[in-house]
Amino acid sequence: MPRQIVEQKLLNFLTDDLGQGDITATALIPPNLVATAHVIAKENGTLAGIEEATILAEALGLKTQTQTTDGQQIHQNQILLKLTGPAQTILVAERTLLNLLSRMSGIATQTHTLTQQLQTTLTITHNNNPNIRIAATRKSAPGLLYFDKKAVLIGGGDPHRLHLDDMVLIKDNHLALSGSVEEALKKAKTHTSFSKKIEIEVTTPEDALKAAEGGADIIMLDNFSPQQAKETAQTLRQAGHTKVLLEVSGGITPHNLLEYANADINIISIGGLTHSVKALDISLEIVKNV
Amino acid sequence: MPRQIVEQKLLNFLTDDLGQGDITATALIPPNLVATAHVIAKENGTLAGIEEATILAEALGLKTQTQTTDGQQIHQNQILLKLTGPAQTILVAERTLLNLLSRMSGIATQTHTLTQQLQTTLTITHNNNPNIRIAATRKSAPGLLYFDKKAVLIGGGDPHRLHLDDMVLIKDNHLALSGSVEEALKKAKTHTSFSKKIEIEVTTPEDALKAAEGGADIIMLDNFSPQQAKETAQTLRQAGHTKVLLEVSGGITPHNLLEYANADINIISIGGLTHSVKALDISLEIVKNV
Amino acid sequence: MPRQIVEQKLLNFLTDDLGQGDITATALIPPNLVATAHVIAKENGTLAGIEEATILAEALGLKTQTQTTDGQQIHQNQILLKLTGPAQTILVAERTLLNLLSRMSGIATQTHTLTQQLQTTLTITHNNNPNIRIAATRKSAPGLLYFDKKAVLIGGGDPHRLHLDDMVLIKDNHLALSGSVEEALKKAKTHTSFSKKIEIEVTTPEDALKAAEGGADIIMLDNFSPQQAKETAQTLRQAGHTKVLLEVSGGITPHNLLEYANADINIISIGGLTHSVKALDISLEIVKNV
Amino acid sequence: MPRQIVEQKLLNFLTDDLGQGDITATALIPPNLVATAHVIAKENGTLAGIEEATILAEALGLKTQTQTTDGQQIHQNQILLKLTGPAQTILVAERTLLNLLSRMSGIATQTHTLTQQLQTTLTITHNNNPNIRIAATRKSAPGLLYFDKKAVLIGGGDPHRLHLDDMVLIKDNHLALSGSVEEALKKAKTHTSFSKKIEIEVTTPEDALKAAEGGADIIMLDNFSPQQAKETAQTLRQAGHTKVLLEVSGGITPHNLLEYANADINIISIGGLTHSVKALDISLEIVKNV
Amino acid sequence: MPRQIVEQKLLNFLTDDLGQGDITATALIPPNLVATAHVIAKENGTLAGIEEATILAEALGLKTQTQTTDGQQIHQNQILLKLTGPAQTILVAERTLLNLLSRMSGIATQTHTLTQQLQTTLTITHNNNPNIRIAATRKSAPGLLYFDKKAVLIGGGDPHRLHLDDMVLIKDNHLALSGSVEEALKKAKTHTSFSKKIEIEVTTPEDALKAAEGGADIIMLDNFSPQQAKETAQTLRQAGHTKVLLEVSGGITPHNLLEYANADINIISIGGLTHSVKALDISLEIVKNV
Amino acid sequence: MPRQIVEQKLLNFLTDDLGQGDITATALIPPNLVATAHVIAKENGTLAGIEEATILAEALGLKTQTQTTDGQQIHQNQILLKLTGPAQTILVAERTLLNLLSRMSGIATQTHTLTQQLQTTLTITHNNNPNIRIAATRKSAPGLLYFDKKAVLIGGGDPHRLHLDDMVLIKDNHLALSGSVEEALKKAKTHTSFSKKIEIEVTTPEDALKAAEGGADIIMLDNFSPQQAKETAQTLRQAGHTKVLLEVSGGITPHNLLEYANADINIISIGGLTHSVKALDISLEIVKNV
Repeated sequence: MPRQIVEQKLLNFLTDDLGQGDITATALIPPNLVATAHVIAKENGTLAGIEEATILAEALGLKTQTQTTDGQQIHQNQILLKLTGPAQTILVAERTLLNLLSRMSGIATQTHTLTQQLQTTLTITHNNNPNIRIAATRKSAPGLLYFDKKAVLIGGGDPHRLHLDDMVLIKDNHLALSGSVEEALKKAKTHTSFSKKIEIEVTTPEDALKAAEGGADIIMLDNFSPQQAKETAQTLRQAGHTKVLLEVSGGITPHNLLEYANADINIISIGGLTHSVKALDISLEIVKNV
Repeated sequence: MPRQIVEQKLLNFLTDDLGQGDITATALIPPNLVATAHVIAKENGTLAGIEEATILAEALGLKTQTQTTDGQQIHQNQILLKLTGPAQTILVAERTLLNLLSRMSGIATQTHTLTQQLQTTLTITHNNNPNIRIAATRKSAPGLLYFDKKAVLIGGGDPHRLHLDDMVLIKDNHLALSGSVEEALKKAKTHTSFSKKIEIEVTTPEDALKAAEGGADIIMLDNFSPQQAKETAQTLRQAGHTKVLLEVSGGITPHNLLEYANADINIISIGGLTHSVKALDISLEIVKNV
Repeated sequence: MPRQIVEQKLLNFLTDDLGQGDITATALIPPNLVATAHVIAKENGTLAGIEEATILAEALGLKTQTQTTDGQQIHQNQILLKLTGPAQTILVAERTLLNLLSRMSGIATQTHTLTQQLQTTLTITHNNNPNIRIAATRKSAPGLLYFDKKAVLIGGGDPHRLHLDDMVLIKDNHLALSGSVEEALKKAKTHTSFSKKIEIEVTTPEDALKAAEGGADIIMLDNFSPQQAKETAQTLRQAGHTKVLLEVSGGITPHNLLEYANADINIISIGGLTHSVKALDISLEIVKNV
Repeated sequence: MPRQIVEQKLLNFLTDDLGQGDITATALIPPNLVATAHVIAKENGTLAGIEEATILAEALGLKTQTQTTDGQQIHQNQILLKLTGPAQTILVAERTLLNLLSRMSGIATQTHTLTQQLQTTLTITHNNNPNIRIAATRKSAPGLLYFDKKAVLIGGGDPHRLHLDDMVLIKDNHLALSGSVEEALKKAKTHTSFSKKIEIEVTTPEDALKAAEGGADIIMLDNFSPQQAKETAQTLRQAGHTKVLLEVSGGITPHNLLEYANADINIISIGGLTHSVKALDISLEIVKNV
Repeated sequence: MPRQIVEQKLLNFLTDDLGQGDITATALIPPNLVATAHVIAKENGTLAGIEEATILAEALGLKTQTQTTDGQQIHQNQILLKLTGPAQTILVAERTLLNLLSRMSGIATQTHTLTQQLQTTLTITHNNNPNIRIAATRKSAPGLLYFDKKAVLIGGGDPHRLHLDDMVLIKDNHLALSGSVEEALKKAKTHTSFSKKIEIEVTTPEDALKAAEGGADIIMLDNFSPQQAKETAQTLRQAGHTKVLLEVSGGITPHNLLEYANADINIISIGGLTHSVKALDISLEIVKNV
Repeated sequence: MPRQIVEQKLLNFLTDDLGQGDITATALIPPNLVATAHVIAKENGTLAGIEEATILAEALGLKTQTQTTDGQQIHQNQILLKLTGPAQTILVAERTLLNLLSRMSGIATQTHTLTQQLQTTLTITHNNNPNIRIAATRKSAPGLLYFDKKAVLIGGGDPHRLHLDDMVLIKDNHLALSGSVEEALKKAKTHTSFSKKIEIEVTTPEDALKAAEGGADIIMLDNFSPQQAKETAQTLRQAGHTKVLLEVSGGITPHNLLEYANADINIISIGGLTHSVKALDISLEIVKNV
């Protein structure tokens, strides 16, 4: 996304925090006092949002020295970014910058951890399908879809749908209103642009088979146990549906994630990646007057 | 905040998720099909955001039947809100509505749990200062300050500063740039409106005393252990500073929170209330065509 | 798209035309004079935008009586919509309402005409692939993508990509920068969400085959003559690539469109549908005071 | 209009096309790959919008080398503008830049062609009034008034009213509600600022005379044939109304335009200049890595 | 201007004052407490802004009972508007509503007073030109042009230019850059739409004559004394320039205004009408619980 | 407030004045003509807004040479700021720049004058409380709170509340709805964040005492005569309420202001500082072509 568009979003975040301005910095610090600040990790993790932090700082006229890049593994006490400029500006930006950076890094860290664990398991078990992806959902914080999805990507995950308009995803509520799996898929294929994939959520192995026969591009196995997912995948693959993508979703946590590693599936989606974020601890320290 | 202003914020959140519209609902569901949906808790907790959910639904032309109110303790499988209107509209709103409601309820639930634990402890220990408040910080998700702070309030917490302009809060970075506790307080009192309180962060008991003598309205004891906080409070109170508010902050978690209950302090602030939110599990189910 | 979001876009269009208000209506017409107006077709065509016209009128407080629906074939002098309310309001809205309605109906009319001609040809020639779709492109008027795409859909066409983020489309400029067809497809498959289709533009039959082998979901045959398109399609189908979608694009006009009807292709995309629109002639007439 | 205001409009157009970003460029092209692109005319015409194209490119951080200026006659294969910068940025901007440039140039080309034909005719016929202007109307694409009017101006036409607030224009619908030509003009003169001109639309020669006597600054002869326009102008001029401006409007096309050249009129307004635009074919080509 | 557009401007004003909401009303007043409030004049004057006050109140869901209309002479202690609805909402709206109403009424009052004094003088002196208008300028408070101009109009004044785009006004700075009065007028006539009037500012009687001969529609006599204005007008009228409008401007105050009444001029413009507003004293009183 | 946020506000002000652009400058002045302009004081006063004027000019690409700083006493004919750049840009910016600068300087001048008079009186009378502050209110021009408050601060005054959310201020209307002074204060203390001060308005000395006893941080003596204010202050101080701040408000004008100098009060608030501003006369002159 072009920097200028991101910049506007970041300045809107800042405005939300600003009111009529930082009365503390205004009262205590001369406008012309120049300072340097370090953005510092207080714990280990996967960095995400350093690009946004840099854009925000530069949009406010600060000079930046990048010490790290998004996706990098960072460790406690590591300096992530150096900022130089009017001390008032640094202090005004501090909280908004850290809030976004901590959230994005928290998401990337969790995504990376799970992705790594999954890869390790897949390797150890000599799994034939070593490309199972961990994906996010649209269960994000309101207004933050772009940033949350980007953090998932940086952490090695798949962003899944970005908007309501970029893939058809037929869920239980749609089925309740539009009929059987077959009927829903038929309607979707008729009324949707050729440019879109069609995914459908099913709750039984039988419906999974119907969905594959109905031409779904992706089938979401909703709340299937690892064993159910494995058996359903086998049934589908043996019936010749080798290209349809299978996604498991619902009730998947860091704790039971690895149990799905043996199923011949393609995607494991986890809402918690973005709806229950643990922020990575990152702080900003003024280091010296220049 | 007037409903019309909130409405605009909520429609902006929806737009972020919408792209050019919900291609799934458009393909599958006739525009004139009317449906009813239940918003249902999938776990116990403290409800927050039901007012916002109602505003969003009504802004989109849905009829609502409120079953609950913000601040109420809700239980698994409880119906929180009923929506009736075009099924396409319900489905378009579903995710944005749930994302905000789950986040706000997650914040309120955590806040309420900690507040209750603290009150219980204070009562059991016959504490003389039963009014210690749990407070949030500005460590929120970008763009969500209003909603996060409101959820803290609903959960029984104190929102603390709403913006950078509503209280002076002198932190370590300000002190690094503007001199001693005494000098900083003097500058703050000279250059700040009479309508603002002045808070200062200190890292030693000695500075706490200086802050009290310098006329701070609130003193933040940063990273003080429970024992240090207790002793510092005693020192200050005995020195006659009975009205100055004392806040502990930094490294406080649900686990060590109660250890501060014996200190004669006023506020315990916890960044995690808003920076590391565990969303409450809430879903929407289409229940019948009308 | 929810009416409230559309409403905001329409009011922005109105604002663009408004300046400080309609000084003619203000000078001549009493604020409390109520009138009725008819929106009338001045030529035959396919109607699109009557939903938007209704939303705009109602957003301004006018009462509407819908006489037609989007997608309907309309004839000269047909009344499309009746508006009742303050005459000043009707006159303020007139031009913005007509500008959008005329443009959208112009797009739908052209799309419908071409679609019908194509279907007739396909039927006459006993074509085995009677589902060739006519599609739009992103060559739209700036800021009007949503409305232009919707008009194409109403006219029976396929909207194609809605944004830069909803399908991968590898064009000549991407290939110039990222290597061969094979390399580009490999990169796209690796770095793109499973939820997206991947289309690639090719300029030779050889590259079309490579694209199919490389796993493209859709192959755009750029500036292929009807004969070239036919032969390329045969080659691909015979090589077993029966499911890959083939799109012809570039230099296709109403005049040569039907020549592509014999090729075993799936999509014919035409930029002119939205970049060179002939507005349908529609006007508004005040018919009586009420 | 200041560049910064235009820039914001152009970035809004880009946002409309962008979604969460260009997933094709992101997947295929390294962020740090710098490229050069040529914006190239694919047919002859009158250039308009190169200033806007340059502003958009520079707003996104691209370097530009202007090869042409607005208003210039351009020929097929001519390079109009060179862009250098990150290839991802060039590709993100491509379609929005071309869409605006093609539309504005299409408008300017059509305007210029008609203006030239009219001037030639006026010269050949030794017309005494060689200053007849071709003017646009407010029949524009929604949201594009500024750009469409500017393109008309660049093509040698007159933009006519820019908003509903910059001239009084009394049309049939106003007359239907406010009485006779005399009454309407009287009201307009009484209730309108001295800073505004007053134009009135008439449908008969008699009303044209009444309008001149009533003090109209401009009289629009609505749907007058060339002969009727000529005779009405003569009548008015002979009655001493030598300064009132006469505008013909309604049903004027490139085909009958020149027939009005003999009438002693001042303005010929043509809605089609902006409501039915044929985009000029312009493309962007990546030429080399730098 | 349509109510919905005005509403958005008013809600923006409210937002500017709101922060995260009215913490006083929230703390003290139950959300469901309904109240009635009277908007009351505390001094005599000319009312303007009651339409805007009503729109704002209704936009927030309050019921209104209009007691007065814009343009009416109001007296001390008169009830202008009654509001009924949630007390919290009334209190949130109070200050924004009063700020706009007081300012607009202050402008209208001053305009009306001067207009009345001028008319009285013109009548007493049997002036032959009883239609001298008092006009505003663009010297307004930033962002308030629409409201300030409307208040002038309500007070009986002429709004003058609304924007930089609705009349050509050649001032001293333009002349300094573009040459003589003759040259400037020639350029203006050549490069400006026929739909615009052309005004030019002059500083000497000689230039006034040149301006009239050059075809100016309006001539602004800048900083002319009453005697100079009178003589210049005579010279121009005697030279046959009977239709050109003459405007005096610069240094005109309530105190010397009437001295211009004997000059054969058309417009007296006064920047102070909008740049130095004395707000009319208006307050809001809660009168009873309902 | 960060320059980039202010810039956006200033460009919005400009847009309000701009319409489709400055047709005068466009017609008369070549785009590439560079000029220099001086912003010049036409009367003595206290400067405020030169920072905003500079930001606006630079945002538009003009070069600035600052000759003065906010808060400085300026004299007639003093050059305040020099601008260099395209003449068209200077002329486009002129009015918006001057409107803001004149208003802010008008506010600062009035504030400074009153503050100085008060200090002089306090010194002469050997007052024991030489720190009485003159404060503004929220009676500002809509949308201009930030700029008006900043001008007050520059003039030596206290801005008072910035928003509805930064201090509790219980006024007569709140009391009418929520009970006695005691009850209102109790509610306020219970339901408000520890970070806020609580002020209450009283109309009798008795209520002032109750307010002090109820723990108000600030007591507003509404419409107290100087003598009443003095006596009430004495009563309160003698009762031991030495730290509670006392504010007089209501009916205070430049004429009676100094009569309050003998009262032992802390704040004198004056709505007229921002609701009835006399703009300082400042103009812009093109001085030479470069």
